[in-house]
Amino acid sequence: MAGRNMSRRGLLAGGAAAAGGLAATGGYLTGRAASEPAEARAAEQPGTVPFHGVHQAGVATPPQTYGAFAAFDLRPGVAKESLGRLMRLLTDDARRLTEGRAGLADAQPELAGVPARLTVTFGFGPGLFTKVGLDHERPLTDLPEFKTDRLEDRWSGGDLLVQLCGEDAVTLAHALRLIVKDARDFATVRWVQRGFRRSPQAQPPGETQRNLMGQLDGTVQPADPDKAVWISGGGPAWLKGGTFMVLRRIRMDLEEWDAADEAAKEFSIGRRLADGAPLTGGRETDDPDFAAKDFAGFPVIDDNAHIRLARVDDPALRMLRRAYNYEEDVSQDGVVDSGLLFIAYQADLARQFTPVQRRLADSDLLNEWITTTGSSVFVLPPGCTPEGWIGETLLS
Amino acid sequence: MAGRNMSRRGLLAGGAAAAGGLAATGGYLTGRAASEPAEARAAEQPGTVPFHGVHQAGVATPPQTYGAFAAFDLRPGVAKESLGRLMRLLTDDARRLTEGRAGLADAQPELAGVPARLTVTFGFGPGLFTKVGLDHERPLTDLPEFKTDRLEDRWSGGDLLVQLCGEDAVTLAHALRLIVKDARDFATVRWVQRGFRRSPQAQPPGETQRNLMGQLDGTVQPADPDKAVWISGGGPAWLKGGTFMVLRRIRMDLEEWDAADEAAKEFSIGRRLADGAPLTGGRETDDPDFAAKDFAGFPVIDDNAHIRLARVDDPALRMLRRAYNYEEDVSQDGVVDSGLLFIAYQADLARQFTPVQRRLADSDLLNEWITTTGSSVFVLPPGCTPEGWIGETLLS
Repeated sequence: MAGRNMSRRGLLAGGAAAAGGLAATGGYLTGRAASEPAEARAAEQPGTVPFHGVHQAGVATPPQTYGAFAAFDLRPGVAKESLGRLMRLLTDDARRLTEGRAGLADAQPELAGVPARLTVTFGFGPGLFTKVGLDHERPLTDLPEFKTDRLEDRWSGGDLLVQLCGEDAVTLAHALRLIVKDARDFATVRWVQRGFRRSPQAQPPGETQRNLMGQLDGTVQPADPDKAVWISGGGPAWLKGGTFMVLRRIRMDLEEWDAADEAAKEFSIGRRLADGAPLTGGRETDDPDFAAKDFAGFPVIDDNAHIRLARVDDPALRMLRRAYNYEEDVSQDGVVDSGLLFIAYQADLARQFTPVQRRLADSDLLNEWITTTGSSVFVLPPGCTPEGWIGETLLS
Repeated sequence: MAGRNMSRRGLLAGGAAAAGGLAATGGYLTGRAASEPAEARAAEQPGTVPFHGVHQAGVATPPQTYGAFAAFDLRPGVAKESLGRLMRLLTDDARRLTEGRAGLADAQPELAGVPARLTVTFGFGPGLFTKVGLDHERPLTDLPEFKTDRLEDRWSGGDLLVQLCGEDAVTLAHALRLIVKDARDFATVRWVQRGFRRSPQAQPPGETQRNLMGQLDGTVQPADPDKAVWISGGGPAWLKGGTFMVLRRIRMDLEEWDAADEAAKEFSIGRRLADGAPLTGGRETDDPDFAAKDFAGFPVIDDNAHIRLARVDDPALRMLRRAYNYEEDVSQDGVVDSGLLFIAYQADLARQFTPVQRRLADSDLLNEWITTTGSSVFVLPPGCTPEGWIGETLLS
């Protein structure tokens, strides 16, 4: 059939081939003509998150409905110069896709026209620096081991991270395939993790989301990303405007969680399930009263309640959390593998993520129902201009 | 930690436990107070698809963004009477969840408040009738084998189907867990297949969607569901208002498809990729001119082009197609397992699905790039009233 197909193809070459390029799907997030200047298009188009800037998009960007996180290991022999070529190529893909244009090597240009708030964000793991001979510039190490970690290789580590977030799963699937295909001469796929949040139709953006345990998750966030998230002076110059990202795969034992009653759940969290308010009263965003005692003299918020241990008083030291839910296999007996992709961005791992996680690993009451099965850490270089590429400050 | 937790729980029992029930999330699709009559709520609430009716919802319902399809095998010993109890229980879950109310045994009521156009649809496979001693009522058999089938057990068959569709992945995850938990005393999980379509933000509802090959998929649909989809008189009385559903998992070899040029792709489909118009011209919804010849005397639409073989002239015999894309594992070498959950509903399998599929299996040019790895068939009983339950016409 291929032969016949091939031979007929010649007869048709002059005709249908002219119809290619960007599809006109008519949607309100539809891409515009490929011939327009990219900046004009990006600025005008609803549903487009600008790719260029001092910082990479996808961090301070209000979280989109879908996230796909792909970690790669550099192939043997990939050095600083070839990694630079890979990052130029992937930056070009990201720039085009986030603007609703097809990638240069895009075999499905007709799927590229709907950016749907797509962001593509790149990160470098600790091993990348060693592999390309840049250990002297390496600003991070693997995270320390935490008491409750039960890490699996298939969800952990990685030299290069590509984070794709967007409001449309078809757009995301198309972008993931293009990125993976363009990366594979340079790197193997280590893992792909996918997650979801409530869609904008289901919950207005800006409200705190519930995770699959039913809790409001992500109430306390940094007041000022410039202080808490973005790396400023002090560190290596190439990192200014970057950030550190932690991605932890947290499996929830929902069978046991279901069996706990509401009071036990709220006691462990330190917040009410219904509205996320601290057990000491008020509304979700009100400060908990950690000194309050109940009638028997016990603290209202237990010493090992999640919100007490996770608490960071200095807003400049809070992590920016941007979690996604995951749900995968269902066993024959009807047990669903689900949980949370905990994702946090911060300027300083040692002062922000690590001390909080150590407290939680040591005694968080929620540990009874959650297990960390994957862990990885990346440094995200700063953003770039329309003429630049992500990673240029380190690799050029 | 459990012990401590349990002992403290008593002290708290009077307090926080009062806060349960439906969460007030403030979203525009948020559930209303659980104390209101269900009908009042369902009728008023935006984002609610009515559960009750002559037909089950989720078939003629405009397709939602997400689909999750769970097939169960009845456990040994489950008979007509116990299957009836299961269907009463699952109908109650479906009724509540689609109205934004928590299920009776719902351990996460705070996730139930956002129906987001959730539909829950039930189907019976051929084996179910045999297992509960109702072979004399069995209106369907397994599908015949088709030449190109490469079926895997893990994606095929099943006694009982629960189809969940909706606009929010968290709502769907919560509904799936509740259904699976309530079914597991009666049935084991055979498979779960999940799929996605473009979201309403990315593409206005009603437009034909593209699949992951980039084609517009589902252009030709029945003109009148009453003739093509719903079972009317003639068959067994208990089936009136029901339909037959085929679910086929079609893996796409996107690596090879990418390598084909646009003319070859369009030649195989018989339509233009850019706008879905037949190769004989006009617009997506215009009729193809199957008699047209090119300058060399060959048919413009090849004898084995997909649209020629899939064509059904009588609109009353067309299947209602409601496909979802799937995307799962990514190999180390960067090959993504993706494809289509082909889903079709029709009043008569032998006159609608089977002859078309036989033609396609025999000579569709697209077979070079697609492989059917899963296949199942179910009969969907009619809908029910607020006092009834799905399956009552067969099982009560």
